[in-house]
Amino acid sequence: MKFATYADGSLDGRLLIVSRDQSRAVDATAIAPNLLTAVQRWREVEPHLARLAGELEAGVVAEAVAFDPSLALAPLPRAPQWLDGSAFLNHGRLMDHAFNKSPIPDFETTPVMYQGASDDFLGPHADVPFVSEDDGIDLEGEFGVVVDEVAMATPAAAAPDHIRLIVQINDWSLRIIGAREMPRGFGFLQAKPSTSFAPLAVTPDELGPCWCDGRADLFLHVLRNGERIGAASGREMAFSFPELIAHAARTRRLTAGTIIGSGTVSNADRAAGSSCLAEQRVIELLDQGAVRTPFLSFGDRVEMQACFPDGRPGPFGRMDQRVVRAAGVPA
Amino acid sequence: MKFATYADGSLDGRLLIVSRDQSRAVDATAIAPNLLTAVQRWREVEPHLARLAGELEAGVVAEAVAFDPSLALAPLPRAPQWLDGSAFLNHGRLMDHAFNKSPIPDFETTPVMYQGASDDFLGPHADVPFVSEDDGIDLEGEFGVVVDEVAMATPAAAAPDHIRLIVQINDWSLRIIGAREMPRGFGFLQAKPSTSFAPLAVTPDELGPCWCDGRADLFLHVLRNGERIGAASGREMAFSFPELIAHAARTRRLTAGTIIGSGTVSNADRAAGSSCLAEQRVIELLDQGAVRTPFLSFGDRVEMQACFPDGRPGPFGRMDQRVVRAAGVPA
Repeated sequence: MKFATYADGSLDGRLLIVSRDQSRAVDATAIAPNLLTAVQRWREVEPHLARLAGELEAGVVAEAVAFDPSLALAPLPRAPQWLDGSAFLNHGRLMDHAFNKSPIPDFETTPVMYQGASDDFLGPHADVPFVSEDDGIDLEGEFGVVVDEVAMATPAAAAPDHIRLIVQINDWSLRIIGAREMPRGFGFLQAKPSTSFAPLAVTPDELGPCWCDGRADLFLHVLRNGERIGAASGREMAFSFPELIAHAARTRRLTAGTIIGSGTVSNADRAAGSSCLAEQRVIELLDQGAVRTPFLSFGDRVEMQACFPDGRPGPFGRMDQRVVRAAGVPA
Repeated sequence: MKFATYADGSLDGRLLIVSRDQSRAVDATAIAPNLLTAVQRWREVEPHLARLAGELEAGVVAEAVAFDPSLALAPLPRAPQWLDGSAFLNHGRLMDHAFNKSPIPDFETTPVMYQGASDDFLGPHADVPFVSEDDGIDLEGEFGVVVDEVAMATPAAAAPDHIRLIVQINDWSLRIIGAREMPRGFGFLQAKPSTSFAPLAVTPDELGPCWCDGRADLFLHVLRNGERIGAASGREMAFSFPELIAHAARTRRLTAGTIIGSGTVSNADRAAGSSCLAEQRVIELLDQGAVRTPFLSFGDRVEMQACFPDGRPGPFGRMDQRVVRAAGVPA
């Protein structure tokens, strides 16, 4: 199943089921008012959602409408927690170069993960406000999972049963600030403004065999002002999503609707390009001796879309956003 | 005004107004269903809440009942964000000794702040579940503020107008894990299980002249198994709450209900004692040559209560909790 969220004035928006081909949608609020509630009550509502999705697919839902992704909010406009890993080791190694720092202790054997703000997610076509171009505005293409309630100390082997949805993420980052915050040990805060999400949150079966070993085996196409930044595969995660969930739940329970991110999708093969500009910049430095790519400027356009290995568009829909100066902030 | 939250099966609980002497309460759900909603709609609901509080104080509310703090949830059982500073420099300096590490860059001139989980706060009498005593279970007594909507890049000078409520916090910490997480640069995650709150969230006027210069000039009495750990003053914050709010809002808006913490209350005067065990332990090491105080064990009782400088009980009520082994986790 594919789910989207339209605005209705509430903090959680209203729930839609979207057809497999992403062309049509049906209001599902009679089953659950919003996606957060659906995840909270998953076992109870899933059969009803599946029946409605089947009817939508069969073309027998009179109330079906055209799906307009430009109207979509983030599938979960707010979530109980947003915990973002850094599971692609290639990304971490390049970031060590970018920040000119020594490797993170135990980086290859224990996941790193930061707690992000989860109250103010942006939809796939929303403008993205920033205070200053001097902060090093960057994009970060990722995959993520939405879990239902996960008990404290749940092991990785039991975690797959809690993965209800898969999502596609742009975890906007401010690199200049991040380089200052990281050595302070309290994690990223000012370096992480609101995070954006592709229009559709989907059940794992929508990925078919590309949901494999707790990873999304999809290619994340990333464009800046229409130019390709990269198309890296989600397969190279050193830690699977179940392993990231177990890491997150080691000392706390995760309430239903918690989102766990992969960190920036990154492949060892340079031909894959990058899913963030910081990586692209450090690759230029390493391979060509100088950084050519600037960070983002106000007015820049960023597009992201996952694709299946055969080139078909992925299940999450497309993100198409512009970087803008935050309202009310002096130039 | 003093506010408390009782359980009603919802994630946000139901709103009570509590009398100044903390003995009586009245259901306020006809004005706002819960405290989060009240903070979100503060300008609209505040006059109605104030009128009901006045009637409760005057003894003319027929529906008033005895207030039972043992039934209270955290005033906000969940919040949009929980951002915790470390504004007492004395604490930071002692922690550098405790973790045997070099000082945090710019610690005395730029606040440090971590993003905590905000979906699963504990009430003042709730048992506090942990996975293992080997993680270095510690308490951290703090003050905090609850803000309404704060726009991105709001300066400190404009931040006081956004402080709606003041709260008292026990920011439970796992010190063994924290010492591992801090050098990794992604912040505290496993080191920070659910945070606890005193029963009452209060408007700043409840502190009288002890709400001063954006700080809570109260003494935080902390007991472990009935023995005094400390009674440090909230006055010594190097950064005021408005400065912490401005730090948090530098690159993001804060949605209404966001909680900003002071970090562990700590005074340079050793006679004040400590508001966490890690501090007490490092003071023992520095002053007596050896650590005598162990971290917390299952069954230990932790009490916290703020007091006015003249010794009267503070406005937040008392926290009285036990450390327990998490259900379902093998010994």
